[in-house]
Amino acid sequence: MKWNGYRWEKDEYDEKENQKNTSIGNPSNSSTTNNSSAMITTKEALRAAAIGSSVQKHGPTNSLAEWALAVTNAIATKTLVLKPKGLQSVDAIIALARADAAFQTNQLAKLLGAKEARAAQDDFISQSLKVDRVDASPFSLANFPSSSDKSTILFAIDKTLASESALAFRNFDAQESLIVPGSTVVQFVESLGFKVTEFDTAAIGVTPVTAPPKQTVKPGKAAKVAKEAMPVTAADESAIKIGIDVKKNEDFPSWYTQVLIKTEMMDYYDVSGCYILRPWSFKIWAEIKKFFTAEIEELGIEECYFPMFVSAKALNKEKDHVEGFAPEVAWVTKAGQSDLAEPIAVRPTSETIMYPAYAKWVQSHRDLPIRLNQWCNVVRWEFKNPQPFLRTREFLWQEGHTAFATKAESDREVLDILDLYRRVYEEVLAVPVVPGKKSENEKFAGGLYTTTVEGFIPTTGRAIQGATSHSLGQNFAKMFEITIEDPEQKGAKSFVWQNSWGLTTRTIGVMVMVHGDDKGLVLPPKIANIQVIVVPVGITAKTTAEERAKIYEYVDEVVKLCKPVGVRAKADLRDVYTPGYKFNHWEMRGVPIRLEVGPKDIAKNEVRCVVRHDGSSSQLAFINLAKTLPEKLTKIQADMFEKAKAERDAHVIRLEKFENGFVQTLDSKNLILAPWCERVACEKEVKDRSTRIALAGETADEKAPSMGAKTLCIPFKQPTENPVVPGTHLK
Amino acid sequence: MKWNGYRWEKDEYDEKENQKNTSIGNPSNSSTTNNSSAMITTKEALRAAAIGSSVQKHGPTNSLAEWALAVTNAIATKTLVLKPKGLQSVDAIIALARADAAFQTNQLAKLLGAKEARAAQDDFISQSLKVDRVDASPFSLANFPSSSDKSTILFAIDKTLASESALAFRNFDAQESLIVPGSTVVQFVESLGFKVTEFDTAAIGVTPVTAPPKQTVKPGKAAKVAKEAMPVTAADESAIKIGIDVKKNEDFPSWYTQVLIKTEMMDYYDVSGCYILRPWSFKIWAEIKKFFTAEIEELGIEECYFPMFVSAKALNKEKDHVEGFAPEVAWVTKAGQSDLAEPIAVRPTSETIMYPAYAKWVQSHRDLPIRLNQWCNVVRWEFKNPQPFLRTREFLWQEGHTAFATKAESDREVLDILDLYRRVYEEVLAVPVVPGKKSENEKFAGGLYTTTVEGFIPTTGRAIQGATSHSLGQNFAKMFEITIEDPEQKGAKSFVWQNSWGLTTRTIGVMVMVHGDDKGLVLPPKIANIQVIVVPVGITAKTTAEERAKIYEYVDEVVKLCKPVGVRAKADLRDVYTPGYKFNHWEMRGVPIRLEVGPKDIAKNEVRCVVRHDGSSSQLAFINLAKTLPEKLTKIQADMFEKAKAERDAHVIRLEKFENGFVQTLDSKNLILAPWCERVACEKEVKDRSTRIALAGETADEKAPSMGAKTLCIPFKQPTENPVVPGTHLK
Repeated sequence: MKWNGYRWEKDEYDEKENQKNTSIGNPSNSSTTNNSSAMITTKEALRAAAIGSSVQKHGPTNSLAEWALAVTNAIATKTLVLKPKGLQSVDAIIALARADAAFQTNQLAKLLGAKEARAAQDDFISQSLKVDRVDASPFSLANFPSSSDKSTILFAIDKTLASESALAFRNFDAQESLIVPGSTVVQFVESLGFKVTEFDTAAIGVTPVTAPPKQTVKPGKAAKVAKEAMPVTAADESAIKIGIDVKKNEDFPSWYTQVLIKTEMMDYYDVSGCYILRPWSFKIWAEIKKFFTAEIEELGIEECYFPMFVSAKALNKEKDHVEGFAPEVAWVTKAGQSDLAEPIAVRPTSETIMYPAYAKWVQSHRDLPIRLNQWCNVVRWEFKNPQPFLRTREFLWQEGHTAFATKAESDREVLDILDLYRRVYEEVLAVPVVPGKKSENEKFAGGLYTTTVEGFIPTTGRAIQGATSHSLGQNFAKMFEITIEDPEQKGAKSFVWQNSWGLTTRTIGVMVMVHGDDKGLVLPPKIANIQVIVVPVGITAKTTAEERAKIYEYVDEVVKLCKPVGVRAKADLRDVYTPGYKFNHWEMRGVPIRLEVGPKDIAKNEVRCVVRHDGSSSQLAFINLAKTLPEKLTKIQADMFEKAKAERDAHVIRLEKFENGFVQTLDSKNLILAPWCERVACEKEVKDRSTRIALAGETADEKAPSMGAKTLCIPFKQPTENPVVPGTHLK
Repeated sequence: MKWNGYRWEKDEYDEKENQKNTSIGNPSNSSTTNNSSAMITTKEALRAAAIGSSVQKHGPTNSLAEWALAVTNAIATKTLVLKPKGLQSVDAIIALARADAAFQTNQLAKLLGAKEARAAQDDFISQSLKVDRVDASPFSLANFPSSSDKSTILFAIDKTLASESALAFRNFDAQESLIVPGSTVVQFVESLGFKVTEFDTAAIGVTPVTAPPKQTVKPGKAAKVAKEAMPVTAADESAIKIGIDVKKNEDFPSWYTQVLIKTEMMDYYDVSGCYILRPWSFKIWAEIKKFFTAEIEELGIEECYFPMFVSAKALNKEKDHVEGFAPEVAWVTKAGQSDLAEPIAVRPTSETIMYPAYAKWVQSHRDLPIRLNQWCNVVRWEFKNPQPFLRTREFLWQEGHTAFATKAESDREVLDILDLYRRVYEEVLAVPVVPGKKSENEKFAGGLYTTTVEGFIPTTGRAIQGATSHSLGQNFAKMFEITIEDPEQKGAKSFVWQNSWGLTTRTIGVMVMVHGDDKGLVLPPKIANIQVIVVPVGITAKTTAEERAKIYEYVDEVVKLCKPVGVRAKADLRDVYTPGYKFNHWEMRGVPIRLEVGPKDIAKNEVRCVVRHDGSSSQLAFINLAKTLPEKLTKIQADMFEKAKAERDAHVIRLEKFENGFVQTLDSKNLILAPWCERVACEKEVKDRSTRIALAGETADEKAPSMGAKTLCIPFKQPTENPVVPGTHLK
């Protein structure tokens, strides 16, 4: 296969995106500061206290979200100043939280024992802390007037932050961040004489209200009525919303978090970077697993399980490889009360765990191929802000590790697996991806070449790496001495050819981001745990017991006919909830089809069918349901893919010259398809050039990322119209 | 349900058994010592060096195996003294290995760079180390004559031992063990001036030979011929055996290890206590998973995934509970190069991980029940000798965690799940178990009561805990504040009722131990990855290409007809192996049915069928195979269960009086069924009494364990003949 010169350009999602998260303080207000001479700045306070801190420079940022985006290797924080009610003798709470924490001020106040709280007035902040709200930090407590009573101020810190080794604080000009360990912050505040308490953000994640507003709903109009009855106002911090209360296009990070929490896909956990996968998301993973396991079994790949722990020696065997993971490796150093003589790593990936065994098992070509796969958890202790599903410290994945006698066999498998990854995204999750090859720069460390499927999130305009299938060449075989007798040359040894490939729970996050809408989740039928929800409607106070029984019986009939035709259906017969509440409940959770069964439908031997992803509705004849439901689900799956593909395609812009608006095109949420000569120097030049322009502020969008463009992949499917001339590149 | 007073008595397998492992040194030779006055004993050497050590007393032991059994909280070791060939200038190797290490002396020698090695003569040992072979230890190097050249001695240590914090060495009288950290041993030997090297036991696990002896085999007689051609002599250390070369009844620990390694179920790994689950065993786990998942889904239990890490604070919340696990918890304290501010535990079980979330999710009875299950890995860093599948530091399991509004619901589930565990053992693995309730003494720490299924290993006469289903009562709910509004009393809170239940990969080890025979593994059809292996036979040098094609075609037909009737069949068409080799290969791996297809069978439109578990053979008509094969598999499954059950039943002895040979009955590899009044004092008395007798040496079997009998469970199914009078107990 000849790779020629086209590529997709755009910073990858997993590198920098979605650290823009919602904040409760109002950081976009202002970045100007009333720098009075009496004021102690963050930096000065730190210096005065002579406490350990370091500075990370990153250029100007204009909002908390943008700043958080620029912070690397530390946890971006925000400081809230609250005036609580009902906490006797406490006048204000200074709370330090993660910059991306999504909770209501009031919930925090309650957690701390107050009845409720509101954000402190600007006056209060500037008088007590001597800074603007946007610049408040635990260090500004050093400005607190010595004449005032310190016991009236409570300093509260997210307990996961208290134990982090690197917290980032915005410095005044916001061109750099101060990095301080959590324990030092606590120590500093205590040394100033303030009370310190910890709180558990995990305990105040947004949870749905269980008792819904009661209402009577007419059949047919139910959805509309229900929606009107739901609270839709935006910023009422005292009420926890049932539905998603932000728009996907307006505040994507908050939308994403709300969708995951409110649909009960995910929940927070008190170890930073780790999340709970609840059944509503875990079942999606189970469906992906089912599909992929069946396919690789057909290829002759077997399931196994290798230990999670790896000795430092084995881990360090392949230098390039370990360099990529070393800063993120979690080490077990103690068992019970005893120190282990040698620390043991928790697997970040299993190459170095499996290959010593492969070396033992492989003696001759008859022991080949070895084709093993395992589904397991891995740990990568990243210091970037975590993001549910997309970047978590522990995650689930499958990892395949294979060894062949010849390069040809290994090359074939790399592509066979990549095509399965494409099918997981396109056929199972209805998410379009671009299969291609990574540049030398972006390939898997220690491998020969990396193939990838690249996804795209239209809302952010960013690409995201979907899954990768690596040819490791003979590199690991050389390190671990996995050899066979050379078939060509008697007595000589030859090294085996190896691949490794992995697909993670990230798939779920990508699917949510691509398909979700303002109402919440939209699930493609193939992975929907419930494909059809059946809701009885039209039951009022006047409905007789007999009529009600008839409706329930009909609902039951509908559900029963589904299983034999392979449709996963469920009836929502909860009698404490109104139909409107149920409609919202299942819409938010993304169930592909809702069937409503009311007296009028029954009279016509019909059910009302509402499709989640496009809102279309129709009447279906009961008699044909066993045929129409599977057909509808197939069509929904196809339609969702086509819709997502059309949207993605509209954002792929072909460019031959850099001057033709390269950076502006990226900033308009596009990917760029451009010729490339495959030289590293050219790749670097494009990155540098786009970075310079962004830094110089030449772009229209001031929120554009300040880092340059990078290559995503050389797509296997090259444009056939006006094909690129091999060797040419972006002018 | 009324528990009344019967119980099973016998030390549990998982507590003390199967630490008796094979050893290469000849420990049973002698326990007498030529204690000359010139000799420095182990203890004296340690004292002289003033290095850190402690003593564990355990009473007399008569062999290495027996001694290893008595060692707790440390790794039992053995010291080998080898005379290598081909290692220039090295006269002897003193090698320190795990007491249960199963490798050939020669393999070790090769690993260390020698051509081969034999055990040193007694003369050499007594002259150089001044001790008997059985008492050789690294410390006896202190006796090495100062006039001799120390550079001719190489000290080699299993690298996993070098990093262990507690190694056990037999002391001379073998009534106690010396406990020394691995690093101290190395330091001590170095301080004496000897060269020290490490070796990797994982690299010399027994592996099957890939190129078998060539032979011509006649059809029909193939099995016999092949067996004769296989090496069957016992102690030839220079040859690695293809088949199992010890008898199950003669050396059970070696037999077990060989079965696991040679059938490629398992392999060693270089982190102590962790093992590799290869496809041949992992597929058994997958079958168990499939059965259990389908059953609990029917009960309404959902799959999820909670993080692996738990903060010290959450872990310590329930005191009784954490006490049970604290000494075995693995702690992550570093990420990359940074120390974590607070250590994080790796889950030993997930009660304390899940229940804070349950507290958040449960507000009213409408949020109940919560019924979640996850399949995951857990870590319990035990210091007892590890045992593949039965006791490993990392293992796989499912853990169910549920919460209910009422005790009645929770009680029902405890038994529903226990019955599923019974069915996993009895219906899936064909292993009989006794369902019952644990005594107060033996229940899960922090719970209300524990139910269990208890298995039995006839070869050792020991019981083994199969799986447990716990009622946690309201204890955890109180600790984690999982409450609902009391349905009885408005405004009041009531705590939820919780259960937890788990089934581990131990199931696989139990199945191997119960069904395996001298030829190797015997798999019940339900979990056999290959249920039917089809082997072409009767192909000789005279066979024409046409005849050969006909045989292969017939084999292919046989395999093809299996899939549609749900039979997992495979043809072994490897042309480098003889039929005899293949017969042994698949017999050792436990495949339930072997079909042989040769010219004579084809002529009669038949296949020859050989059943693994009883060795019976018959001719089957090809035309009926689609019917007879599934029937045969069903019968094999039933027969294997009945056979195992009859054997178990024969070892359950009912006793009313202690004097009627209580200890002798246990020592004869039996379980005792005895009345019990359910008072803790009586349970303790029986234990003490049996311990005293064992210690006093009153029992016939001198290898009897020196610890007393303990209760296994109060069986739910009580004897109907001559039923026990409630309140009575063993006299």
